[in-house]
Amino acid sequence: MRPQIVLFGDSITEQSFGPGGWGTALANTYSRKADVLVRGYGGYNTRLALFLLHHIFPLGCVTPPVATTVFFGANDAALLGRNNERQHVPIEEYKENIRRIVKHLKECSPTMLVVLITPPPVDEERRKESVYGKKTMELPERTNEMAGVYAMQCVELAKELGLPSINLWSKMQETEGWQKKFLSDGLHLTGKGNAVVHQEVVKVFNDAWLCASEMPYDFPHHSAIDWRDPGKAFQQQCS
Amino acid sequence: MRPQIVLFGDSITEQSFGPGGWGTALANTYSRKADVLVRGYGGYNTRLALFLLHHIFPLGCVTPPVATTVFFGANDAALLGRNNERQHVPIEEYKENIRRIVKHLKECSPTMLVVLITPPPVDEERRKESVYGKKTMELPERTNEMAGVYAMQCVELAKELGLPSINLWSKMQETEGWQKKFLSDGLHLTGKGNAVVHQEVVKVFNDAWLCASEMPYDFPHHSAIDWRDPGKAFQQQCS
Repeated sequence: MRPQIVLFGDSITEQSFGPGGWGTALANTYSRKADVLVRGYGGYNTRLALFLLHHIFPLGCVTPPVATTVFFGANDAALLGRNNERQHVPIEEYKENIRRIVKHLKECSPTMLVVLITPPPVDEERRKESVYGKKTMELPERTNEMAGVYAMQCVELAKELGLPSINLWSKMQETEGWQKKFLSDGLHLTGKGNAVVHQEVVKVFNDAWLCASEMPYDFPHHSAIDWRDPGKAFQQQCS
Repeated sequence: MRPQIVLFGDSITEQSFGPGGWGTALANTYSRKADVLVRGYGGYNTRLALFLLHHIFPLGCVTPPVATTVFFGANDAALLGRNNERQHVPIEEYKENIRRIVKHLKECSPTMLVVLITPPPVDEERRKESVYGKKTMELPERTNEMAGVYAMQCVELAKELGLPSINLWSKMQETEGWQKKFLSDGLHLTGKGNAVVHQEVVKVFNDAWLCASEMPYDFPHHSAIDWRDPGKAFQQQCS
Protein backbone atom coordinates (compact mmCIF):
# COMPACT_ATOMS: atom_id res chain seq x y z
CA MET A 1 0.00 0.00 0.00
CA ARG A 2 2.74 2.41 0.98
CA PRO A 3 5.38 2.93 -1.67
CA GLN A 4 8.73 1.31 -0.89
CA ILE A 5 12.18 2.87 -1.04
CA VAL A 6 15.00 0.33 -1.08
CA LEU A 7 18.56 1.08 0.03
CA PHE A 8 20.83 -1.37 -1.80
CA GLY A 9 24.49 -1.43 -0.95
CA ASP A 10 27.33 -2.62 1.25
CA SER A 11 28.12 -2.08 4.95
CA ILE A 12 27.57 1.67 4.69
CA THR A 13 23.99 0.88 3.73
CA GLU A 14 23.67 -2.01 6.20
CA GLN A 15 24.72 0.30 9.03
CA SER A 16 22.31 3.00 7.90
CA PHE A 17 19.74 1.72 10.38
CA GLY A 18 22.19 1.95 13.26
CA PRO A 19 21.96 4.85 15.75
CA GLY A 20 21.96 8.13 13.85
CA GLY A 21 22.03 6.31 10.52
CA TRP A 22 21.02 7.86 7.21
CA GLY A 23 18.52 5.09 6.56
CA THR A 24 16.57 5.70 9.75
CA ALA A 25 16.65 9.44 9.10
CA LEU A 26 15.22 8.75 5.65
CA ALA A 27 12.54 6.47 7.10
CA ASN A 28 11.63 9.29 9.45
CA THR A 29 11.50 11.80 6.58
CA TYR A 30 9.00 9.55 4.79
CA SER A 31 7.08 8.67 7.96
CA ARG A 32 3.53 7.54 7.14
CA LYS A 33 4.26 8.03 3.44
CA ALA A 34 6.77 5.43 2.29
CA ASP A 35 8.56 2.43 3.79
CA VAL A 36 12.33 2.43 3.70
CA LEU A 37 13.80 -1.06 3.39
CA VAL A 38 17.49 -1.68 3.96
CA ARG A 39 19.22 -4.16 1.72
CA GLY A 40 22.78 -3.50 2.81
CA TYR A 41 25.38 -6.28 2.92
CA GLY A 42 28.64 -5.67 4.74
CA GLY A 43 31.72 -6.69 2.77
CA TYR A 44 29.85 -7.07 -0.52
CA ASN A 45 31.17 -5.63 -3.74
CA THR A 46 29.24 -5.25 -7.01
CA ARG A 47 30.28 -8.75 -8.11
CA LEU A 48 28.44 -10.25 -5.14
CA ALA A 49 25.57 -7.78 -5.52
CA LEU A 50 24.71 -9.35 -8.87
CA PHE A 51 23.83 -12.62 -7.12
CA LEU A 52 21.16 -10.80 -5.09
CA LEU A 53 19.42 -8.90 -7.86
CA HIS A 54 16.75 -11.41 -8.82
CA HIS A 55 16.03 -12.24 -5.20
CA ILE A 56 15.69 -8.70 -3.91
CA PHE A 57 14.13 -7.27 -7.05
CA PRO A 58 12.20 -10.11 -8.68
CA LEU A 59 11.02 -9.40 -12.20
CA GLY A 60 7.25 -9.35 -12.48
CA CYS A 61 6.79 -8.10 -8.93
CA VAL A 62 3.46 -6.25 -8.84
CA THR A 63 4.64 -3.67 -6.31
CA PRO A 64 8.28 -2.89 -7.12
CA PRO A 65 10.03 -0.17 -5.13
CA VAL A 66 9.35 3.39 -6.29
CA ALA A 67 12.98 4.27 -5.64
CA THR A 68 16.27 2.49 -5.02
CA THR A 69 19.63 3.85 -3.96
CA VAL A 70 22.58 1.88 -5.35
CA PHE A 71 25.56 2.47 -3.11
CA PHE A 72 28.55 0.23 -3.92
CA GLY A 73 32.19 0.80 -4.69
CA ALA A 74 33.88 1.16 -1.32
CA ASN A 75 34.76 -2.54 -1.38
CA ASP A 76 35.33 -2.80 -5.12
CA ALA A 77 38.02 -0.14 -4.71
CA ALA A 78 40.04 -2.21 -2.21
CA LEU A 79 43.55 -2.50 -3.65
CA LEU A 80 45.13 -5.58 -5.18
CA GLY A 81 48.10 -6.89 -3.23
CA ARG A 82 46.86 -5.38 0.02
CA ASN A 83 44.95 -6.77 2.96
CA ASN A 84 41.47 -6.82 1.46
CA GLU A 85 42.36 -7.65 -2.10
CA ARG A 86 39.69 -10.32 -2.31
CA GLN A 87 37.10 -7.54 -2.33
CA HIS A 88 38.76 -5.82 -5.28
CA VAL A 89 36.77 -5.53 -8.50
CA PRO A 90 38.53 -3.96 -11.50
CA ILE A 91 37.18 -0.54 -12.39
CA GLU A 92 35.77 -1.60 -15.77
CA GLU A 93 33.96 -4.53 -14.18
CA TYR A 94 32.64 -2.27 -11.38
CA LYS A 95 31.13 0.07 -13.95
CA GLU A 96 29.69 -2.84 -15.92
CA ASN A 97 28.21 -4.38 -12.77
CA ILE A 98 26.51 -1.14 -11.79
CA ARG A 99 25.19 -0.90 -15.33
CA ARG A 100 23.73 -4.40 -15.01
CA ILE A 101 22.17 -3.53 -11.65
CA VAL A 102 20.51 -0.45 -13.14
CA LYS A 103 19.33 -2.39 -16.18
CA HIS A 104 17.73 -4.98 -13.93
CA LEU A 105 16.04 -2.36 -11.75
CA LYS A 106 14.61 -0.63 -14.79
CA GLU A 107 13.36 -3.97 -16.11
CA CYS A 108 11.72 -4.45 -12.74
CA SER A 109 10.03 -1.09 -13.07
CA PRO A 110 10.75 1.45 -15.81
CA THR A 111 9.48 4.25 -13.57
CA MET A 112 11.68 3.35 -10.59
CA LEU A 113 13.82 6.26 -9.42
CA VAL A 114 17.35 4.84 -9.35
CA VAL A 115 20.00 6.92 -7.59
CA LEU A 116 23.68 6.03 -7.78
CA ILE A 117 25.83 6.93 -4.79
CA THR A 118 29.63 6.92 -5.07
CA PRO A 119 31.88 5.51 -2.39
CA PRO A 120 32.89 8.04 0.29
CA PRO A 121 36.44 9.34 0.49
CA VAL A 122 39.02 7.29 2.40
CA ASP A 123 41.14 8.47 5.31
CA GLU A 124 44.17 6.32 4.64
CA GLU A 125 45.89 6.98 7.95
CA ARG A 126 43.00 5.48 9.85
CA ARG A 127 42.50 2.61 7.41
CA LYS A 128 45.98 1.45 8.35
CA GLU A 129 44.84 1.16 11.95
CA SER A 130 41.51 -0.54 11.44
CA VAL A 131 41.74 -3.48 9.15
CA TYR A 132 39.33 -5.97 10.65
CA GLY A 133 41.27 -6.51 13.84
CA LYS A 134 44.54 -7.27 12.11
CA LYS A 135 47.78 -5.53 12.90
CA THR A 136 48.51 -2.05 11.73
CA MET A 137 49.81 -2.15 8.18
CA GLU A 138 52.39 0.01 6.54
CA LEU A 139 50.20 0.46 3.49
CA PRO A 140 46.45 1.04 3.64
CA GLU A 141 44.15 -1.49 1.90
CA ARG A 142 42.30 1.37 0.25
CA THR A 143 43.46 4.77 -0.95
CA ASN A 144 41.48 7.93 -1.32
CA GLU A 145 42.76 8.36 -4.84
CA MET A 146 41.49 4.96 -5.91
CA ALA A 147 38.09 5.54 -4.26
CA GLY A 148 37.96 8.73 -6.33
CA VAL A 149 38.52 6.76 -9.55
CA TYR A 150 35.54 4.54 -8.73
CA ALA A 151 33.48 7.56 -7.73
CA MET A 152 34.19 9.26 -11.03
CA GLN A 153 33.16 6.19 -13.03
CA CYS A 154 29.98 5.96 -10.99
CA VAL A 155 29.07 9.57 -11.72
CA GLU A 156 29.93 9.19 -15.40
CA LEU A 157 27.76 6.12 -15.70
CA ALA A 158 24.87 7.95 -14.04
CA LYS A 159 25.20 10.74 -16.62
CA GLU A 160 25.38 8.24 -19.45
CA LEU A 161 22.21 6.51 -18.21
CA GLY A 162 20.40 9.73 -17.35
CA LEU A 163 20.19 8.91 -13.63
CA PRO A 164 20.69 11.19 -10.66
CA SER A 165 23.82 10.53 -8.65
CA ILE A 166 25.43 11.64 -5.42
CA ASN A 167 29.17 12.20 -5.55
CA LEU A 168 29.84 11.54 -1.91
CA TRP A 169 33.56 11.34 -2.50
CA SER A 170 33.65 14.96 -3.72
CA LYS A 171 30.91 16.28 -1.48
CA MET A 172 32.53 15.18 1.76
CA GLN A 173 35.93 16.52 0.84
CA GLU A 174 34.47 20.00 0.45
CA THR A 175 34.37 20.19 4.25
CA GLU A 176 37.57 20.82 6.14
CA GLY A 177 38.41 18.00 8.54
CA TRP A 178 36.20 15.55 6.62
CA GLN A 179 38.49 12.71 7.68
CA LYS A 180 37.33 12.68 11.28
CA LYS A 181 34.16 14.68 10.93
CA PHE A 182 32.48 12.28 8.52
CA LEU A 183 34.37 8.99 8.88
CA SER A 184 34.54 6.82 11.99
CA ASP A 185 37.30 4.46 10.87
CA GLY A 186 38.51 6.07 7.68
CA LEU A 187 35.69 4.49 5.63
CA HIS A 188 32.43 4.12 7.53
CA LEU A 189 30.28 7.07 8.56
CA THR A 190 30.02 9.10 11.74
CA GLY A 191 26.73 10.70 12.77
CA LYS A 192 27.69 13.78 10.76
CA GLY A 193 28.70 11.64 7.80
CA ASN A 194 25.32 9.92 7.96
CA ALA A 195 23.66 13.33 8.02
CA VAL A 196 25.43 14.29 4.79
CA VAL A 197 24.16 11.16 3.03
CA HIS A 198 20.64 11.71 4.35
CA GLN A 199 20.64 15.32 3.22
CA GLU A 200 21.94 14.48 -0.25
CA VAL A 201 19.49 11.64 -0.78
CA VAL A 202 16.57 13.81 0.29
CA LYS A 203 17.78 16.54 -2.08
CA VAL A 204 17.88 14.13 -5.02
CA PHE A 205 14.51 12.62 -4.14
CA ASN A 206 13.00 16.09 -3.86
CA ASP A 207 14.42 17.10 -7.23
CA ALA A 208 12.84 14.01 -8.71
CA TRP A 209 9.18 13.40 -7.93
CA LEU A 210 9.59 11.87 -4.53
CA CYS A 211 9.26 14.87 -2.25
CA ALA A 212 7.95 13.75 1.14
CA SER A 213 6.08 16.97 1.83
CA GLU A 214 4.10 16.52 -1.38
CA MET A 215 3.23 12.88 -0.79
CA PRO A 216 -0.06 11.93 0.85
CA TYR A 217 -0.30 10.24 4.22
CA ASP A 218 -1.32 6.60 3.90
CA PHE A 219 -4.22 7.31 6.28
CA PRO A 220 -5.85 10.54 7.44
CA HIS A 221 -3.97 12.80 9.82
CA HIS A 222 -5.84 12.99 13.12
CA SER A 223 -6.55 16.68 12.51
CA ALA A 224 -8.44 15.77 9.31
CA ILE A 225 -10.84 13.46 11.12
CA ASP A 226 -14.34 14.43 12.18
CA TRP A 227 -14.31 12.65 15.51
CA ARG A 228 -18.10 12.48 15.69
CA ASP A 229 -18.13 10.62 12.37
CA PRO A 230 -14.62 9.25 11.84
CA GLY A 231 -15.68 6.76 9.18
CA LYS A 232 -16.11 9.58 6.70
CA ALA A 233 -12.41 10.44 6.56
CA PHE A 234 -11.48 6.81 6.02
CA GLN A 235 -14.12 6.29 3.33
CA GLN A 236 -12.75 9.25 1.42
CA GLN A 237 -9.08 8.29 1.64
CA CYS A 238 -9.19 4.51 1.65
CA SER A 239 -11.89 3.64 -0.87
CA MET B 1 11.53 -12.82 1.39
CA ARG B 2 12.53 -11.40 4.74
CA PRO B 3 9.95 -11.84 7.49
CA GLN B 4 8.13 -8.67 8.48
CA ILE B 5 7.57 -7.28 11.94
CA VAL B 6 4.86 -4.61 12.11
CA LEU B 7 4.61 -1.98 14.84
CA PHE B 8 0.96 -0.96 15.05
CA GLY B 9 0.01 1.88 17.34
CA ASP B 10 -0.35 5.60 18.00
CA SER B 11 2.19 8.44 18.12
CA ILE B 12 4.50 6.50 20.41
CA THR B 13 4.81 3.98 17.62
CA GLU B 14 4.88 6.61 14.87
CA GLN B 15 7.79 8.34 16.60
CA SER B 16 9.63 5.05 17.08
CA PHE B 17 11.61 5.72 13.90
CA GLY B 18 12.71 9.13 15.13
CA PRO B 19 16.25 9.63 16.45
CA GLY B 20 16.96 7.07 19.17
CA GLY B 21 13.55 5.47 18.66
CA TRP B 22 12.63 1.95 19.75
CA GLY B 23 11.53 1.03 16.22
CA THR B 24 14.88 1.83 14.64
CA ALA B 25 16.67 0.01 17.45
CA LEU B 26 14.47 -3.00 16.73
CA ALA B 27 15.17 -2.74 13.00
CA ASN B 28 18.86 -2.73 13.85
CA THR B 29 18.47 -5.77 16.12
CA TYR B 30 16.90 -7.67 13.22
CA SER B 31 19.32 -6.28 10.62
CA ARG B 32 19.52 -8.59 7.56
CA LYS B 33 16.99 -10.90 9.19
CA ALA B 34 13.60 -9.19 9.33
CA ASP B 35 12.09 -5.92 8.15
CA VAL B 36 10.48 -3.70 10.75
CA LEU B 37 7.56 -1.70 9.37
CA VAL B 38 6.07 1.17 11.33
CA ARG B 39 2.33 1.59 11.25
CA GLY B 40 2.02 4.25 13.92
CA TYR B 41 -0.63 6.97 13.74
CA GLY B 42 -0.35 9.98 16.00
CA GLY B 43 -3.56 10.86 17.81
CA TYR B 44 -5.28 7.59 16.96
CA ASN B 45 -7.15 5.58 19.55
CA THR B 46 -8.37 2.00 19.19
CA ARG B 47 -11.65 3.21 17.68
CA LEU B 48 -9.78 4.73 14.76
CA ALA B 49 -7.39 1.78 14.59
CA LEU B 50 -10.28 -0.48 13.62
CA PHE B 51 -10.70 1.46 10.37
CA LEU B 52 -7.13 0.56 9.40
CA LEU B 53 -7.18 -3.15 10.11
CA HIS B 54 -8.26 -4.50 6.75
CA HIS B 55 -5.99 -2.09 4.90
CA ILE B 56 -2.81 -2.74 6.86
CA PHE B 57 -3.47 -6.43 7.47
CA PRO B 58 -5.50 -7.64 4.50
CA LEU B 59 -7.02 -11.09 4.93
CA GLY B 60 -5.64 -13.58 2.47
CA CYS B 61 -2.26 -11.87 2.27
CA VAL B 62 0.27 -14.53 1.27
CA THR B 63 3.08 -13.04 3.34
CA PRO B 64 1.52 -11.69 6.54
CA PRO B 65 3.82 -10.28 9.22
CA VAL B 66 5.44 -12.85 11.50
CA ALA B 67 4.94 -10.53 14.44
CA THR B 68 2.95 -7.42 15.32
CA THR B 69 3.12 -5.16 18.35
CA VAL B 70 -0.21 -3.59 19.28
CA PHE B 71 0.46 -0.44 21.25
CA PHE B 72 -2.66 1.64 21.88
CA GLY B 73 -4.32 3.10 24.94
CA ALA B 74 -2.49 6.34 25.63
CA ASN B 75 -5.14 8.25 23.66
CA ASP B 76 -8.08 6.07 24.65
CA ALA B 77 -7.28 6.99 28.27
CA ALA B 78 -7.67 10.75 27.66
CA LEU B 79 -10.24 12.00 30.15
CA LEU B 80 -13.78 13.05 29.39
CA GLY B 81 -14.44 16.70 30.07
CA ARG B 82 -10.81 17.67 29.59
CA ASN B 83 -8.83 19.07 26.71
CA ASN B 84 -8.49 15.92 24.63
CA GLU B 85 -11.79 14.30 25.40
CA ARG B 86 -12.46 13.55 21.75
CA GLN B 87 -9.75 10.89 21.94
CA HIS B 88 -11.41 9.20 24.89
CA VAL B 89 -12.63 5.64 24.45
CA PRO B 90 -14.46 4.02 27.38
CA ILE B 91 -12.45 1.27 29.04
CA GLU B 92 -14.82 -1.55 28.04
CA GLU B 93 -14.76 -0.43 24.43
CA TYR B 94 -10.96 -0.12 24.52
CA LYS B 95 -10.68 -3.72 25.66
CA GLU B 96 -13.18 -4.87 23.07
CA ASN B 97 -11.37 -2.98 20.31
CA ILE B 98 -8.03 -4.56 21.20
CA ARG B 99 -9.78 -7.92 21.22
CA ARG B 100 -11.08 -7.25 17.70
CA ILE B 101 -7.63 -6.18 16.54
CA VAL B 102 -6.10 -9.39 17.89
CA LYS B 103 -8.88 -11.51 16.37
CA HIS B 104 -8.26 -9.93 12.99
CA LEU B 105 -4.49 -10.41 13.20
CA LYS B 106 -4.94 -14.07 14.08
CA GLU B 107 -7.34 -14.48 11.17
CA CYS B 108 -4.67 -12.94 9.01
CA SER B 109 -2.17 -15.47 10.27
CA PRO B 110 -2.80 -17.92 13.11
CA THR B 111 0.95 -18.18 13.72
CA MET B 112 1.53 -14.43 13.97
CA LEU B 113 3.21 -13.41 17.22
CA VAL B 114 0.98 -10.69 18.61
CA VAL B 115 2.36 -8.65 21.51
CA LEU B 116 0.18 -6.21 23.45
CA ILE B 117 1.89 -3.16 24.90
CA THR B 118 0.17 -1.05 27.55
CA PRO B 119 0.21 2.74 27.54
CA PRO B 120 3.17 4.25 29.41
CA PRO B 121 2.64 6.05 32.71
CA VAL B 122 1.66 9.73 32.62
CA ASP B 123 3.49 12.60 34.28
CA GLU B 124 0.51 14.81 34.98
CA GLU B 125 2.47 17.91 35.90
CA ARG B 126 4.04 18.03 32.49
CA ARG B 127 0.86 17.13 30.65
CA LYS B 128 -0.60 20.35 32.02
CA GLU B 129 2.15 22.26 30.29
CA SER B 130 2.15 20.54 26.94
CA VAL B 131 -1.29 20.23 25.51
CA TYR B 132 -0.77 20.72 21.82
CA GLY B 133 0.31 24.32 22.06
CA LYS B 134 -2.66 25.40 24.12
CA LYS B 135 -2.39 27.28 27.34
CA THR B 136 -1.39 25.58 30.55
CA MET B 137 -4.41 23.94 32.11
CA GLU B 138 -5.31 23.53 35.71
CA LEU B 139 -6.26 19.92 35.21
CA PRO B 140 -4.29 17.50 33.04
CA GLU B 141 -6.06 15.83 30.09
CA ARG B 142 -4.71 12.47 31.18
CA THR B 143 -3.96 11.05 34.61
CA ASN B 144 -1.49 8.39 35.54
CA GLU B 145 -4.16 6.55 37.46
CA MET B 146 -6.44 6.32 34.43
CA ALA B 147 -3.57 5.18 32.18
CA GLY B 148 -3.02 2.45 34.76
CA VAL B 149 -6.63 1.30 34.45
CA TYR B 150 -6.21 0.89 30.69
CA ALA B 151 -2.85 -0.81 31.18
CA MET B 152 -4.38 -3.33 33.56
CA GLN B 153 -7.18 -4.18 31.13
CA CYS B 154 -4.63 -4.60 28.36
CA VAL B 155 -2.56 -7.04 30.43
CA GLU B 156 -5.66 -8.94 31.53
CA LEU B 157 -6.84 -9.29 27.97
CA ALA B 158 -3.42 -10.59 26.92
CA LYS B 159 -3.62 -13.24 29.65
CA GLU B 160 -7.14 -14.17 28.61
CA LEU B 161 -6.06 -14.56 24.99
CA GLY B 162 -2.78 -16.29 25.82
CA LEU B 163 -0.67 -13.51 24.33
CA PRO B 164 2.55 -12.00 25.61
CA SER B 165 2.25 -8.44 26.88
CA ILE B 166 4.48 -5.64 28.07
CA ASN B 167 3.20 -3.67 31.02
CA LEU B 168 5.02 -0.47 30.25
CA TRP B 169 2.98 1.46 32.78
CA SER B 170 4.29 -0.71 35.63
CA LYS B 171 7.75 -1.32 34.23
CA MET B 172 8.64 2.33 33.86
CA GLN B 173 7.42 3.26 37.30
CA GLU B 174 9.87 0.78 38.84
CA THR B 175 12.62 3.31 38.10
CA GLU B 176 12.98 6.34 40.32
CA GLY B 177 12.59 9.57 38.42
CA TRP B 178 10.69 7.83 35.60
CA GLN B 179 8.77 11.04 34.95
CA LYS B 180 11.67 12.87 33.38
CA LYS B 181 13.93 9.94 32.67
CA PHE B 182 11.53 8.14 30.38
CA LEU B 183 9.01 10.79 29.30
CA SER B 184 9.77 13.88 27.23
CA ASP B 185 6.44 15.69 27.69
CA GLY B 186 4.76 13.57 30.30
CA LEU B 187 3.53 11.05 27.74
CA HIS B 188 5.94 10.51 24.84
CA LEU B 189 9.29 8.80 25.23
CA THR B 190 12.81 10.10 25.77
CA GLY B 191 15.83 8.21 24.45
CA LYS B 192 15.93 6.22 27.67
CA GLY B 193 12.21 5.58 27.49
CA ASN B 194 12.64 4.30 23.95
CA ALA B 195 15.43 2.04 25.19
CA VAL B 196 13.06 0.49 27.76
CA VAL B 197 10.49 -0.32 25.08
CA HIS B 198 13.15 -1.75 22.77
CA GLN B 199 14.57 -3.90 25.53
CA GLU B 200 11.16 -5.22 26.57
CA VAL B 201 10.07 -6.00 23.02
CA VAL B 202 13.31 -7.87 22.33
CA LYS B 203 12.85 -9.81 25.56
CA VAL B 204 9.33 -10.89 24.56
CA PHE B 205 10.40 -11.74 21.00
CA ASN B 206 13.31 -13.79 22.35
CA ASP B 207 11.04 -15.67 24.74
CA ALA B 208 8.80 -16.49 21.82
CA TRP B 209 10.47 -17.95 18.73
CA LEU B 210 11.68 -14.71 17.21
CA CYS B 211 15.21 -14.46 18.59
CA ALA B 212 17.37 -12.46 16.19
CA SER B 213 20.57 -14.34 17.02
CA GLU B 214 18.91 -17.62 16.03
CA MET B 215 17.47 -16.33 12.77
CA PRO B 216 19.35 -16.82 9.50
CA TYR B 217 20.72 -13.97 7.45
CA ASP B 218 18.72 -13.44 4.28
CA PHE B 219 21.95 -13.79 2.28
CA PRO B 220 25.38 -15.20 3.16
CA HIS B 221 27.61 -13.26 5.53
CA HIS B 222 30.73 -12.16 3.69
CA SER B 223 32.84 -14.41 5.89
CA ALA B 224 30.89 -17.44 4.63
CA ILE B 225 31.70 -16.75 1.01
CA ASP B 226 34.44 -18.50 -0.95
CA TRP B 227 35.63 -15.46 -2.88
CA ARG B 228 37.18 -17.54 -5.65
CA ASP B 229 33.80 -19.18 -6.27
CA PRO B 230 31.18 -16.92 -4.68
CA GLY B 231 28.29 -18.46 -6.59
CA LYS B 232 28.48 -21.55 -4.39
CA ALA B 233 27.40 -19.74 -1.23
CA PHE B 234 24.44 -18.18 -3.00
CA GLN B 235 23.36 -21.43 -4.63
CA GLN B 236 23.30 -23.08 -1.22
CA GLN B 237 21.40 -20.37 0.58
CA CYS B 238 19.15 -18.98 -2.13
CA SER B 239 18.00 -22.04 -4.04
